[in-house]
This record gives sequence, C-alpha cells and structure tokens, in this order.
Amino acid sequence: MPPMITPLKDENTLDVEGLERLINHILAGGVHGLFILGTTGESTSLSYEIRHELVRRTCAIVGDRVPVLVGITDTAAAESLRLADTAAKEGAAAVVAAPPYYFNLGQPELIEYYEYLLERLSLPLFLYNMPSHTKIIIEPDTVKTLSKYEGIVGLKDSSANNAYFNNVMNKMKDRPDFSLFVGPEEIMAETVLLGAHGGVNGGANMFPELYVKLFEAAEAGDVATVKALHSIVMEISSKLYSLGKFGSSYLKGIKAALSILGICSDYMASPLHRFRETEREKIAANLEEIKSKMLDIRP
Amino acid sequence: MPPMITPLKDENTLDVEGLERLINHILAGGVHGLFILGTTGESTSLSYEIRHELVRRTCAIVGDRVPVLVGITDTAAAESLRLADTAAKEGAAAVVAAPPYYFNLGQPELIEYYEYLLERLSLPLFLYNMPSHTKIIIEPDTVKTLSKYEGIVGLKDSSANNAYFNNVMNKMKDRPDFSLFVGPEEIMAETVLLGAHGGVNGGANMFPELYVKLFEAAEAGDVATVKALHSIVMEISSKLYSLGKFGSSYLKGIKAALSILGICSDYMASPLHRFRETEREKIAANLEEIKSKMLDIRP
Amino acid sequence: MPPMITPLKDENTLDVEGLERLINHILAGGVHGLFILGTTGESTSLSYEIRHELVRRTCAIVGDRVPVLVGITDTAAAESLRLADTAAKEGAAAVVAAPPYYFNLGQPELIEYYEYLLERLSLPLFLYNMPSHTKIIIEPDTVKTLSKYEGIVGLKDSSANNAYFNNVMNKMKDRPDFSLFVGPEEIMAETVLLGAHGGVNGGANMFPELYVKLFEAAEAGDVATVKALHSIVMEISSKLYSLGKFGSSYLKGIKAALSILGICSDYMASPLHRFRETEREKIAANLEEIKSKMLDIRP
Amino acid sequence: MPPMITPLKDENTLDVEGLERLINHILAGGVHGLFILGTTGESTSLSYEIRHELVRRTCAIVGDRVPVLVGITDTAAAESLRLADTAAKEGAAAVVAAPPYYFNLGQPELIEYYEYLLERLSLPLFLYNMPSHTKIIIEPDTVKTLSKYEGIVGLKDSSANNAYFNNVMNKMKDRPDFSLFVGPEEIMAETVLLGAHGGVNGGANMFPELYVKLFEAAEAGDVATVKALHSIVMEISSKLYSLGKFGSSYLKGIKAALSILGICSDYMASPLHRFRETEREKIAANLEEIKSKMLDIRP
Repeated sequence: MPPMITPLKDENTLDVEGLERLINHILAGGVHGLFILGTTGESTSLSYEIRHELVRRTCAIVGDRVPVLVGITDTAAAESLRLADTAAKEGAAAVVAAPPYYFNLGQPELIEYYEYLLERLSLPLFLYNMPSHTKIIIEPDTVKTLSKYEGIVGLKDSSANNAYFNNVMNKMKDRPDFSLFVGPEEIMAETVLLGAHGGVNGGANMFPELYVKLFEAAEAGDVATVKALHSIVMEISSKLYSLGKFGSSYLKGIKAALSILGICSDYMASPLHRFRETEREKIAANLEEIKSKMLDIRP
Repeated sequence: MPPMITPLKDENTLDVEGLERLINHILAGGVHGLFILGTTGESTSLSYEIRHELVRRTCAIVGDRVPVLVGITDTAAAESLRLADTAAKEGAAAVVAAPPYYFNLGQPELIEYYEYLLERLSLPLFLYNMPSHTKIIIEPDTVKTLSKYEGIVGLKDSSANNAYFNNVMNKMKDRPDFSLFVGPEEIMAETVLLGAHGGVNGGANMFPELYVKLFEAAEAGDVATVKALHSIVMEISSKLYSLGKFGSSYLKGIKAALSILGICSDYMASPLHRFRETEREKIAANLEEIKSKMLDIRP
Repeated sequence: MPPMITPLKDENTLDVEGLERLINHILAGGVHGLFILGTTGESTSLSYEIRHELVRRTCAIVGDRVPVLVGITDTAAAESLRLADTAAKEGAAAVVAAPPYYFNLGQPELIEYYEYLLERLSLPLFLYNMPSHTKIIIEPDTVKTLSKYEGIVGLKDSSANNAYFNNVMNKMKDRPDFSLFVGPEEIMAETVLLGAHGGVNGGANMFPELYVKLFEAAEAGDVATVKALHSIVMEISSKLYSLGKFGSSYLKGIKAALSILGICSDYMASPLHRFRETEREKIAANLEEIKSKMLDIRP
Repeated sequence: MPPMITPLKDENTLDVEGLERLINHILAGGVHGLFILGTTGESTSLSYEIRHELVRRTCAIVGDRVPVLVGITDTAAAESLRLADTAAKEGAAAVVAAPPYYFNLGQPELIEYYEYLLERLSLPLFLYNMPSHTKIIIEPDTVKTLSKYEGIVGLKDSSANNAYFNNVMNKMKDRPDFSLFVGPEEIMAETVLLGAHGGVNGGANMFPELYVKLFEAAEAGDVATVKALHSIVMEISSKLYSLGKFGSSYLKGIKAALSILGICSDYMASPLHRFRETEREKIAANLEEIKSKMLDIRP
C-alpha cells in the first residue's frame, strides 16, 4: 500500500497529468491500496486547497480499483475533520492520523485527542506512529486502549523500532482484524514474516511490483525469495535515499527518480527543495543499476 | 508584548466578547504591542477560518493603539503567506514565523525556507526560535545570516536557553535595530537587564502592568525593583503554570485564570483541554494569593 | 550469546556461588558464547575491583566450553584498556566496547576513539551500538570505515532500530566474516531470518535453550518454528520486563526471575534497586505461566 | 569558583609542573574556591589513578588558601565513594556529583541514588545538573526534596536553561544557605544579578580576575560594570570556544589557550584530542585580541 508522493508543478499547482500517470503506474504493479497525504506525500507542506483537490482527483482516478486511504494528520482537529469529510464524500476507504505534532502531549491527552476525532469521523481510522516527526510515541498500551473503539482499525508504524512494533503485535495478537503496517521499507520483509499485515513503503511509487512480490513472499514465509527481494529494497534505500545531507534525502530521492523515469515532476513544496543537478545525475546512474537488478525478478 | 491567548467558545467559534474584553484589559496595562497566533494563542490548533477571523477582529479592536504582530508559523508556506496577506490587509505591523515543525530540516534548508517567505511577504518578519515544539534550533549563525535581509527585523527566542540567547545577542551587538525578545517570562528580567529588547510573556494576558513595570525596571537597570517584581513572576509561574502533569499546564493555567477573572472563556482547542474542577479550584485560590502580592506594586 | 547479569551479594561483593550456578545454567542451554560486563551485566555500576574479579572468575568457570566476550565500555580509555588486559590474560576471546558515553562526540571523534583502542588491544574488538544509553549512534558509514581494521570483528546493535541494522547489514554484505548481532531479544528472530549472525539476548540468562532454539530455527529459515518461539520471547518481554515504571524494569525483571528460580541473588548495584515485594510476586506468577509454555518446546 | 582543567602530559601522566602553575595562576585571580574533576576537568576520561593523584596534589598545592571541591560523578557509586574518601582525607571542602550517566533513571531512582551516597559521605555534597551529558534533569522538585538532607548543600546547574534555574531559585528562596551556582559562563552575570551565589566558569582557568570582578559587580547590582565585563566573557565564548565542529570545542579551546599562555600542556585524554595547528593559530590570534580588551578592566 504505497504512500503516494504528491506530484506538483509548483507550490500551488498539482501536476495533474503526472498524478494520473503515477497512479496508473502504481496500480499496474498490483498494490492492495493507495495511501495519499502521508509524510511521503508532503501533506503538511501543502495548502489546504491542494490537499482537498488531491483527494478528489485521486479518488476519481483510482475509482474502485483499490481502496484509497487519506492522511488527515494535522495540528488542528478542525482541519483534519474537514479533510476527512472530503475523503468520505469522494469515496475513500479510510483515514490515517498521526498525533498532532506541535504541542507535546502526554498519553492521556493523546487518547482524548483520538477520541475527539473518532466521535466526528464517518470513515474508519488508522493510527500513525511517527515519533521522529511528531515528537510523541503512540505507546503500545495506548494502541491497545484505542483499539477498543470500533472506528479504529489499525496502526501504521514508521518508528523503525521493531522492538516497539513487536510489542504492539504481541499486545494485539487476539485481534487479527486490527491491521498492523510498517512504514520504512527497510523493515517490511521481516515484520510481515512475523505476522504484520503489510507495508506502506515509499519505494512502491517507483517499483510497485517489487514491494508487492516481497510482501507476498514474506506472507507466504518464503525466506529465500524474501532475502533476494529484500536485498534489492536495501539497494534502493542505499542508492536512492542517501544522497543528500538531511533527513529529506529519502523524499528528494523518490521524486528525482520518478522524474527521471518520466512519470511526474520532481517539484517539492517548501520547506523542501528538489535535488540539484549533481545529485540528480547520481540518482539517474543508480537507477539504471537498480533497474537491471529488477529484471531478474520479472516473471 | 503579550502573546495573546485565543478566547474560544468552542472548537469553531471565537469568544468575540471575551476577545474584546481581553484586548482592552491587556492594552490598559500599558503594553507596547500585541502578538497573536503564537504558541500561547494555540495557533496551530485553530482552523484557518478562525485564524483569519482572529486577525481581522484583533486588528479592528486594537486600532492604532499598539502594533499588532501576527504569528504565521505553519508547516505549509502557502498557508503562512495567506495569513500574512490578511495581516497586511488588516493593518498588522509585522508577522512572526517559527521554523516549519513537521520535517526535520538542516540549517541550510531552514535558511532557504525563510528566504522563500521573505520574497513573498510585504510585512516585516520576526524569527521565532521554539525548539521544544519545532525540533530545530535557529542556530546563532543562521540568525546572523538571515539578519542581513532587510525584511527580517528581529528574533523571539522561546528556548529558555540563555547561553544561546546571549550568544545571539553578542553576534548581533552591532545591530541595535534588530529586535531580540524572549518568550519565557521566567527569564525576561535578566535578559532585558543585559540588553534584550523585551519579553513576549504569557502572564501579561492576566497581569499586563506587572510585566510592563518589570520590563521598564530592567531596562532602567533598577535591580532592586527587578528582583521584587521578578519574584512575583516566579510565583505566577509556580502557582498557576504547574498544576497539571503535562507541558500544557502553562496554557491551561492562563486560560483558567482568565476565566476566573471574568475576562474570557477557558475553552481550549483540541488536542488540549481546559482544566477540570480540581485544578481550577487550586488556580482560583492561588490567584487570590498572587493578586494580594500585586497590590503592593500598584502606585 | 547471552549478556550475563552480574550476581551480587551487595554493592562490593560478587555472589560467587550464584555466579557459578548461573554460568552452568546458561551453558547447559547450549549457547555459543557468553558476554559479560555489558549493560545487562550492570558493568558501569560496578567498582573496578569487581569488574576485574568477574572477568577472572567467569573465565575460570567457563574454561574452554564457549568463548567469553568481555565488555570494556568506559568513559576512560585507560580503564577500558586495563580491563582488556585482564580479559586477554584470563583467556577471553574478544572484548566489546560501546562509545564513551559522557562527552557528546562527533563521528570523526568516535572513529579516532576506536582507533586509539585498537592500537592498544591484543584481543579482537566488537563495536557496540547503544544510543539510548551513550547518546551517540555508530553511524553505518562509521561501522563500514572501522570494519577495515582487522582488529574489529563485528557489531552488537542494541538500538532496536531495524532500518539502521538492515542498512549496516547491507553495507557489510561483502564481509560475511564481520559478525552482526542484535541486543533486544524482541527483534532477534527477524534479524537472523534476514542474515544476522546472532543475538545477545538478556532472556537467555533465564531460558538459554529457548533463545538457542529460536536462533537455530531462524538461521534455518524455519518460519513456523520461529513464530512459535518468538511468541514466547514476546511473552517474556511483556510479562517479566514491563512491571516497573522506568527503563530499568528489564534488568530488574531478569534479576528477580533468576532469584525466584533459585539461581542467584537479585541484588542490584546502585543506582538501580531490586524489585520490591509487589513486583516480585507478579514476576513469580508470570514466570509460572511462561514456564508452562516452555514445556511445549522441550523435545 | 573555576572548574579546573586537568593538565596532562599524556594519557596516564599529570603535567605536575603545569598543575602547580595553573593553580597559582587561578588563585592569584582572587577566586573563592576551586572545583576539580568536573566536566571541564575531563574527569570521566581519566584513569582512577590519575583522579586520585589529582585530588592529592591539588589539595597539597592549594593548602588552605581556598576551599577545594572534588567532582565524584561516576556511574559506579563505589568509585564515587572511594574518590570522596580521598577528598576527605586530603582536606577538600566538599564533593560534587552529577547523576549517574549510563542508565536512564526516573526521578525517584535519582533520589534514592543521592540518598545512597549521602549515607556514606563525610563531606558535604553539591548536586550537579548536567542534562546534556547525563541525559537526566534533576527536576526542581527533586532538588527541593533532596535539600532537606543536611549533607546536601547546593546545586551547580550546567543546563543553561534559566527558566529551570529560576524555578529552582524560587523553590529554594527560603533557604539562603543552599548554594546555587551556574556552570556556563555566558549566563553567570544575569543569574548572580537575580540572586544566584556564583559561577563555576571554565574561562576562569585563563582569566580568573575577569570572572571574579564580574561576579562581584553582579552581586553588587552594578549593572553597567556587569554589562562591560559580560561582553568580554561573550567574546571569549565566541572567539575561543567555537572553533571546532563538535561540542568539545569549548574544552579544546581552553586547553589550547592555556598552552599558548605558557601555563600548562594542552594534551587531552581520549576520547578527545587537542586542537590541531590551524585552530591553535586562530586561538592564538583571538587570544591577543581578548587580552587587549582585558587591559581596560585592570585597575
């Protein structure tokens, strides 16, 4: 279930043609859902007008091919709810909310926050643990507490802390209906091997079938295939996401690669900026290398 | 220059009468400016409709009595700029922007961000250092670099790290026109004694004249008066801001006190919640004690 | 390869009989090595006299049954080297060093630090990544750089960040001789499934055969067995390591359990303290439950 | 009360002649005490043999000219107590202990730790708040709780967080006998102006009379003199402590300056290293500039 990047022409304009190409490219890879307006989608950098437009256009393009999940993470609950309304109206399947990321909340305050949302949402809600960006961990006991509400249907964990994730999995083992996903693609293989329900992996914007196959192999417990495909994922991580100096290298790498692949524009909303020529050339070279490895996994 | 709290009736409704009472109460205390939509103003928790409405109403009520500063801190530059447009149109004097607080930026990215804003702003801009909430320090060298732009006129520092603040003051000592303010009222006295230009102190919502007198005494180098008034500020900090378990106790304390004083509603926007009865009663009792001390400082 | 706890009678006295029982209990479980004076061994809380005594006694009791690894982590390189000398003299197989944990070092300073040690060590050295306690990550590129030295033979990673660990594994994939271990037992199964060389898991003080079997199943790619045994490990984590309020609950839980099992004293060196009666009783009850599950895995 | 650096010839050898020159240089400046084996003294990097030797030699050289305070900060209470014994035997006036800095303690654990020390100490104890290095804040309420013990006589705060420090001062305002010092020299002036009892400032290794005069002016409430001297302190901070890339620049700067001034060796114990020639030359040039400013303050 890829966390889709948001194709932009400039700060205030969606790359509408790129968006359509990107969605069709991703869906052709056999993914099981599409998650928009997450961290990878630069959600928090976009004007609200664009966020709502993206929900409308994405739902229209996807149709009923796969479920669409819409990120509504915000510091202002009122804006989260407005976006959730649009999502519901346009036919999205669920919404996803990380903790509000400005004030430093305690866990009881966090529980009250999700309860506040829940009472006002019509779509099911996924929790989204993203401590590096929100400054707060959704503690395993908080997940457990919140899971009692029917409206909360799962957790996406982007902490990369597998002790945390396994702790949550263990606490939720009697609730197979509660979906557990991980964000960082570097850890998707192993978590699915041990029982997680899937990955929300940025690389699937570029190579959706790779991540689908890796997921399927992990779900089937086919360790040999998992190892082979996982090693390509790690190459992608190492060769495309690590070329800049800051945390934004991951996002810049994906957008640069999609632009090189002719799928969509690499414009990034402020405060981030697309890679300059030097990094772009390296991405292009590394992309060739990765594509050659990918050939081996095609049927 | 008080960071005004935002009086709310409920999540989506300003307490308009409370707002007018509050502004007049604050201005009667002799403050030199009014800062709205900062952290104390719960800016990031408010819907955009309310943020714009607050700018309009505040500018109208204040008129030309004192300059109004408008917080435009946001993760989305487009929304910051929309708010800055409203501020300019309504007659505000300046805008204030903390770093975008979702992505983890490097200092060069932060400089580019402020440059992006600057090129599009018509009002002067204050930097706002608030690392506990934004996860990034505006490094002293970054302040120095940005101060070369005419559009940037000062810094509000809420880090409470006085080694940082004195470092910035030292770097800017040849620029007396560049304004340096501190946020936490617990450190206003000492920073002004050493040359800072003022405080943006939440307690001035309740007791504006106390902070004005303290500022004036500090600016005049009157250490004895500074010590006497500073000790009341510390009582306020200890008796009104420390009753809850989380970082939000400061904000909840001010809003509870203003409600007890009959000035405005204590409703807090999600994700925060007003104090419950137990804490409110303690605030009421402590408030009496503080008011009795305050009598001594009246002329 | 269990990180052995240090059995103590009081602050300055080893529980010598307990030590012998514990070592023999662990080795009977079929472990492939023994690691003393790590975090689980409370190394940094022990007087130097006890640290040296523990090396001597452990090496004598173990003999040549399995390799002994000795933690030499310290803020003072001189003391690390003295301990390494004792380790070498007593027949230990290798030493293990986390970064010095008082000053905040940059990566180049960290590299110089390990080079300084290397030039003075006679035994092979394992790096030990433990950012929650040392405040510094041994960055993947630093591991790569240091791996060029013959004297550095592996890494123990206790970060619980599997994106980090997989990144290191990927960088070291051409160096199968460079050993990669993880500390937290909650993530051992999955890392070994993907190619890690083992775990340094505290629970193996109590139930060594469980961790050995889990390691063997993971190494063999036997996913079904891995899942079954991993779920017991997660029960241990949840029922024995989470009863206190602080980070020390893990250590207190293991020592309480070993005392209940009649193996050794649960005295903990200052600044930590053993569990009081309430927690101890819960540990005792939970231990019974875990032991009953363990029966199923015995041949 | 300067936190004395530790003059070293090499990793295992005190620069004994440098030590004598340094102590006499510092005492000639009129300081009110001498603090050895703190962070500035690289305490945690020194072998225990050197730590004990330094206590003996310093107490002998100082004699009864000023009180000597000895840092006993350690992760192992047993080693702290051994050092405290030497300090008592050699005639030191008090000991100073930061929280143990390896395990992550809760505040109740921290209180128990200090109680453990107290029961075994013969000298009075100063608390030492140093969260950037120890990962734990001694919360104001913890200071208050511990201050009830007769053996605890004060706090040295190196957090640079003046909201914290003022909070502690406020809580302790009925205990004028409880000494409150700050570490960072950049904030000494203002804290003493508001009532703190002194500074433990590294720059006083080089220019003791500057810090003594600044302290006296602040204590007397002479704001004009405070501002003039404080501005020199800020120049020292900016020109001598900021030449490297890492947190260690402060320490390297002081040692380089003392070596250039002909007072003692600039050797630094592992894991730190003295400045290389480039930085040393800059220090030398900046030192000239600072010395010329200093002339103005001589009577």
